[in-house]
Amino acid sequence: MALQPGLTSTSLGELATYLQAELRGDAKVQVCGLATLATATAEQLAFLANPKYASQLETTAAAAVILAPDVAADFSGNCLVLDNPYLGFARASRLFDRRPRPEPGIHPTAVVDPSASVDATASIGPNVVIAADVRIGAGTEVGAGSTIGARSVLGADCLIHPRVSIAYDVHLGDRVRVHSGAVIGSDGFGFARDGAQWIKIAQLGGVRIGDDADVGACTTIDRGALDDTIIEEGVILDNQIQIAHNVRVGAYTAIAACTGIAGSTRIGRNCTIAGGVGISGHLEICDGVHLGGMCMVTRSIKEPGAYGSALSAMPMDQYLKSAVRIRQLDGLAKQVRKLERKLEKDS
Amino acid sequence: MALQPGLTSTSLGELATYLQAELRGDAKVQVCGLATLATATAEQLAFLANPKYASQLETTAAAAVILAPDVAADFSGNCLVLDNPYLGFARASRLFDRRPRPEPGIHPTAVVDPSASVDATASIGPNVVIAADVRIGAGTEVGAGSTIGARSVLGADCLIHPRVSIAYDVHLGDRVRVHSGAVIGSDGFGFARDGAQWIKIAQLGGVRIGDDADVGACTTIDRGALDDTIIEEGVILDNQIQIAHNVRVGAYTAIAACTGIAGSTRIGRNCTIAGGVGISGHLEICDGVHLGGMCMVTRSIKEPGAYGSALSAMPMDQYLKSAVRIRQLDGLAKQVRKLERKLEKDS
Amino acid sequence: MALQPGLTSTSLGELATYLQAELRGDAKVQVCGLATLATATAEQLAFLANPKYASQLETTAAAAVILAPDVAADFSGNCLVLDNPYLGFARASRLFDRRPRPEPGIHPTAVVDPSASVDATASIGPNVVIAADVRIGAGTEVGAGSTIGARSVLGADCLIHPRVSIAYDVHLGDRVRVHSGAVIGSDGFGFARDGAQWIKIAQLGGVRIGDDADVGACTTIDRGALDDTIIEEGVILDNQIQIAHNVRVGAYTAIAACTGIAGSTRIGRNCTIAGGVGISGHLEICDGVHLGGMCMVTRSIKEPGAYGSALSAMPMDQYLKSAVRIRQLDGLAKQVRKLERKLEKDS
Repeated sequence: MALQPGLTSTSLGELATYLQAELRGDAKVQVCGLATLATATAEQLAFLANPKYASQLETTAAAAVILAPDVAADFSGNCLVLDNPYLGFARASRLFDRRPRPEPGIHPTAVVDPSASVDATASIGPNVVIAADVRIGAGTEVGAGSTIGARSVLGADCLIHPRVSIAYDVHLGDRVRVHSGAVIGSDGFGFARDGAQWIKIAQLGGVRIGDDADVGACTTIDRGALDDTIIEEGVILDNQIQIAHNVRVGAYTAIAACTGIAGSTRIGRNCTIAGGVGISGHLEICDGVHLGGMCMVTRSIKEPGAYGSALSAMPMDQYLKSAVRIRQLDGLAKQVRKLERKLEKDS
Repeated sequence: MALQPGLTSTSLGELATYLQAELRGDAKVQVCGLATLATATAEQLAFLANPKYASQLETTAAAAVILAPDVAADFSGNCLVLDNPYLGFARASRLFDRRPRPEPGIHPTAVVDPSASVDATASIGPNVVIAADVRIGAGTEVGAGSTIGARSVLGADCLIHPRVSIAYDVHLGDRVRVHSGAVIGSDGFGFARDGAQWIKIAQLGGVRIGDDADVGACTTIDRGALDDTIIEEGVILDNQIQIAHNVRVGAYTAIAACTGIAGSTRIGRNCTIAGGVGISGHLEICDGVHLGGMCMVTRSIKEPGAYGSALSAMPMDQYLKSAVRIRQLDGLAKQVRKLERKLEKDS
Repeated sequence: MALQPGLTSTSLGELATYLQAELRGDAKVQVCGLATLATATAEQLAFLANPKYASQLETTAAAAVILAPDVAADFSGNCLVLDNPYLGFARASRLFDRRPRPEPGIHPTAVVDPSASVDATASIGPNVVIAADVRIGAGTEVGAGSTIGARSVLGADCLIHPRVSIAYDVHLGDRVRVHSGAVIGSDGFGFARDGAQWIKIAQLGGVRIGDDADVGACTTIDRGALDDTIIEEGVILDNQIQIAHNVRVGAYTAIAACTGIAGSTRIGRNCTIAGGVGISGHLEICDGVHLGGMCMVTRSIKEPGAYGSALSAMPMDQYLKSAVRIRQLDGLAKQVRKLERKLEKDS
């Protein structure tokens, strides 16, 4: 368990201990990285998670392979046996992470308000700007050029990549990761009409993000209008997602890139939402809902399960014909009804 | 009218004066914030704009409620009577805004070209970079880490949040708000083919944004190819919107998040465009058009009114069946035509 | 060929030499910019690429026009004759580019790691942060506030606009342009489930971008999980595009704004992908594929040609009727089959 991220090499035996895996083969084999079965060299560890690639086991050059028990039974090479090989791969990947870790401390070019409290073990990068009354927890890293607004709180061991905006009154739990370009706490899109003009509604709420959440690059999460926008623990958000004001995303829900969720909608726990999905405002999506790519949700969903709506690409001539027919669909349905009536009458 | 943003408490009487509302009840009641009818405490002001929530009037703990005259007639608690309660709420919200206001002046870490002109009442935050010949108007605030390119002009009382990019030759009117991550004046996507290769077309125009416009987080507005891209006064743009080169958006049009508008399209005045909409290039959308969520517009629209095209989510089995049937739709229409002919012949 | 970007005026003769065009008319006429036929003044150069605008030739006030040989034959004004007038316009546009060019050198506010190698002819703007072991080539410009992570390599004559994030282990070829807000090398969205929780998979690959590629504003390109994400030479990416981990985009492919490509998908060469398209992961799209706006691709495409799937906007009443009919489509198809059977039996 002594292995740490940033490894350049270790032995299979040490990996087995770290992963709590059963080792079959030579514990002294050196492993200097991870790769797929197809591309691994004799110094790399591979894994088999998808049965589709099982045949590659015969030809892989990998130093060793992470395998499930049933597959390992038939494998003669070095292997690490785990019930969930993909999870083992995930854990092993973190050892070989090449992301440079900065030293603790505040870079001399950072601008930190005297009222802010930054833990001595935190790392604040070049040109970071930290406003009044901010609190930054132990081991948290704030990358170059990021800005943290007044009264925001970052827990322990968070990783804020370079060039992130965290506005004022934003609370992050522990171990939250935020990728470059993300904006947390931008104003919600709230306006009241005054004749033709739009009068801005000040957004008085903040944003709360739970432990272990992940916020992708250029993802935007608006602050609440009155109450907070809430992302619960363990939620993972891919890139370029838009979360409007007062949305609540339930724990462990995963959302793929380019999805947008309109204001005040509540998403349940353990949902998976594919890329490019759009969800209207003021809806309730229950726990365990799975939304297919680019679908549009305009009504609350009360039953767990899978839902979809977007059509898949067709060759252009077929697409154009279908598109015309869809416009005529109401007429077609009426034609059919008429035929039915006629046949009923005739018979 | 002496109330200013940043209030922590005021009396109902002062609020009535500020909002030009009729006060019914106790003018001395202290109000220290805003909330919904359901969550308001005895020190908070609530409002009723949506009749759906009318029943909450009976149980609300709010110090007072903003109400329309007909509703106020039946309400025995403290209230502020206004024809448009939602507008009253919007105005009141600005009093309780918690966004910290910086002092006027240029932060010592800002890099300001000597040829730039910054009004003495403007506030330029840490690590801001302002290029040659820029002009920044009175009361305008530029947040930490933003960059303003050469010859750009920001009017009075603009609010540029942290980490915004404004390129060169961009003109903002007065009271324009731009949220974090937004990019104004990026190059339009203009290329000419030279065999397989793409030759970049320099984008010689700029961007002009009218008074009181609002530009959301991570929204991108490209500079024009020859002439300027234009956002007229009072336009409100949500987050993650893409406006291509030479688009013109008419005054007071509102556009929700994740919408993209391709080059040279003109959008009329007073339109509302929902989230995730895509509009092709070189189109004209007339005034007063309302586009539904995620719809695609490929032809000009000459009649005001509502339009849509995206399908809504269905349970996966229904979705898969419908998707297959759509592909067969041309065939189905022909089957029906054949049946009709057969029946015509028979009868 | 001595003309350089940043021109304020030149003669038609010099332009003809620069563009290798045949000059008809007065070589001494001064040209101080470019414009469309409709808006050009007597000091501006116009062009005719789209036959739709041919009638404007009669009334244009332009100093001269770039024309194809067949059109030039009937034109009595000054003109520059080229087989591809649009390409000539693209080349001429670069002469009149108004983007300010910074002096070579490192701005005193930039933070450059001592181990980084920056060519003496490169220009590093204010508040740029360059990490350890970075290499920046000759003539490359890095705009204000951009961050470049460890071990990344930028070739010669690249243009990195202000406020760009380039993470660690990212390689750009020569003449690559990256617009503001773009993020290159953010983590891919890779997680393994451990019960309800998501365990992050460290993203061990980098990103490689070929010569002459163009990356739009707020576009995100994730680093690979094990191998690199690859954008080949001459690829042009518009704004707000999402490229997931281990995607490969083939040379000279053009992708319009707001498109998302999921992990490990390979896009061929010379494809054109319209705006708002979504492409699922682990697919192969062959060379020469053209995808229509907002279409969704869920299967590999093995035949070059055009494909589409999104419906176009209809007036709301027609849209609502069609949407209902689509949900009933399986039933309708069954009704028709029943009618057919009945008629077969009867006849």
